[in-house]
Amino acid sequence: MIPALSAPPPVEEPSSDTRFRILATAERFFREIGYQKTTVADIAKTLRMSPANVYRFFDSKKAINEAVVARIIGEVEARIAALADRPSVTAEARLREIIVFLHRDAVERFTGHPRMHEMVEAAMSESWDVCRHHVDRITAVLERVVADGVARGEFAVEDPAVAARCVHTAIVRFCHPVLVVQCPEDFVPALDAMIAFLIGALRAGSRAA
Amino acid sequence: MIPALSAPPPVEEPSSDTRFRILATAERFFREIGYQKTTVADIAKTLRMSPANVYRFFDSKKAINEAVVARIIGEVEARIAALADRPSVTAEARLREIIVFLHRDAVERFTGHPRMHEMVEAAMSESWDVCRHHVDRITAVLERVVADGVARGEFAVEDPAVAARCVHTAIVRFCHPVLVVQCPEDFVPALDAMIAFLIGALRAGSRAA
Repeated sequence: MIPALSAPPPVEEPSSDTRFRILATAERFFREIGYQKTTVADIAKTLRMSPANVYRFFDSKKAINEAVVARIIGEVEARIAALADRPSVTAEARLREIIVFLHRDAVERFTGHPRMHEMVEAAMSESWDVCRHHVDRITAVLERVVADGVARGEFAVEDPAVAARCVHTAIVRFCHPVLVVQCPEDFVPALDAMIAFLIGALRAGSRAA
Repeated sequence: MIPALSAPPPVEEPSSDTRFRILATAERFFREIGYQKTTVADIAKTLRMSPANVYRFFDSKKAINEAVVARIIGEVEARIAALADRPSVTAEARLREIIVFLHRDAVERFTGHPRMHEMVEAAMSESWDVCRHHVDRITAVLERVVADGVARGEFAVEDPAVAARCVHTAIVRFCHPVLVVQCPEDFVPALDAMIAFLIGALRAGSRAA
C-alpha cells in the first residue's frame, strides 16, 4: 500500500464556475429579497467567499445585475432562435410560437416574484444599453422570420426590419416585465386576437395601402 | 349719495369652485414635489383653508388623486372624441390623428415632470378601476372610428371592438406614462411607421387570412 503523502495541492475552481455560482446566487437574492436590499457581502457570505473575491469577477452590484440580466436574455434568445430557425414550419406559425413564448416566459419569470421588478428597474435606469441590446436582438430574430415569410410569399411587407420592430413594440404589453405584472389580463385583447391582428398586418403589407 | 351700509354678507364660494381649486393645487404639488411627499395639509395651506375643509370634499389623498386622474382623463377623452366625431374626415385620418394626439399628450404631460410618475403609480396600484375605466373609454372612442371605417368600406375587420383593443394595446409604448418616460425614442419604430402598420391590419381584416 502506498503511504499517503501530503494532501494534494488545492484544486482551484475554474473562474467560469465561480462566475456562474455568483450569478446564480445573485439572481436568487434579487428574486427573493430584491435588488435594492441585496449586498455583495450577502452574495459572498452565501458562497463562503470573501466580498473581495466577488469583486475579482464583478466590480459592482450593478455589474452583477448586468450579467444576471444578460444571462436571462441569453436564455430567451436561444429559445426563440430555436423556434425561428425551423424552415419546415410556416413563418406565421413560427412567429405565433415566438410571441406566445415571450409572453409566457415574462409571466412565469415576473409574476409571483414581485421583487424581480427591482432588478429590471435597476437595469432600465442604470444599464439601459443592456436592455436596448436585448430588444434589438429579439427584434432581429423576429425580423428573420418576417423576412423569410416575405420570401415564401406568406407576408407582403416591404421592410421586414420595420415590420419586426412594429410587431415587437405592439406586444410590449404582453412581454414587458412591468406591464405583465401590473396590468390584469382581462382587459387587454387575448394574446391570440393580438397575434391574428398583427399577422393580418404582415400579410397585407403595402397591398392594403 | 347713498351712505355705505354694513359690508355685504360674505359670499360663500360655490362648492364646485373649491373642489376645482383643491384639484388644481393638488395636481401642481403632485407634478412638482410628487405624490408621495404631498400632504393634504400642504394643499390646504396653499389654499389658505383648513385640512378639515379639504376633507369635506375628499376623504383621503387617494380620493384627491383619483379625482386629479379623472380630470386629466376627462380632458384627454374630450379631445379625442372631438377628433373621432368628424364624419367628413376618413376613418383612417381620424385614427391617425387620435394616436398622434395620445402620444404627444403623454409625452408633454409626463416627460420633464418625473414626479408625475408617482401619481400614476399610485393610481395604478391603489385605484386600478380608475385606470381601467380610462383605458375602456379611450378604447371605446377608437372602436367608434374603426366601426365607422368598416361601415365606409375603409376597413375590413370583423370585430371592431377587438380590433380597437388591439390598436390601443399596440400603441401602449407610445402612450403609457411609464414607458413614454423610460424608453428612449430612437429604438422603437417611428410612430408613423407603427400607425401605417396598424392601419394595414385594419384594412386587411380577415381578407388577409
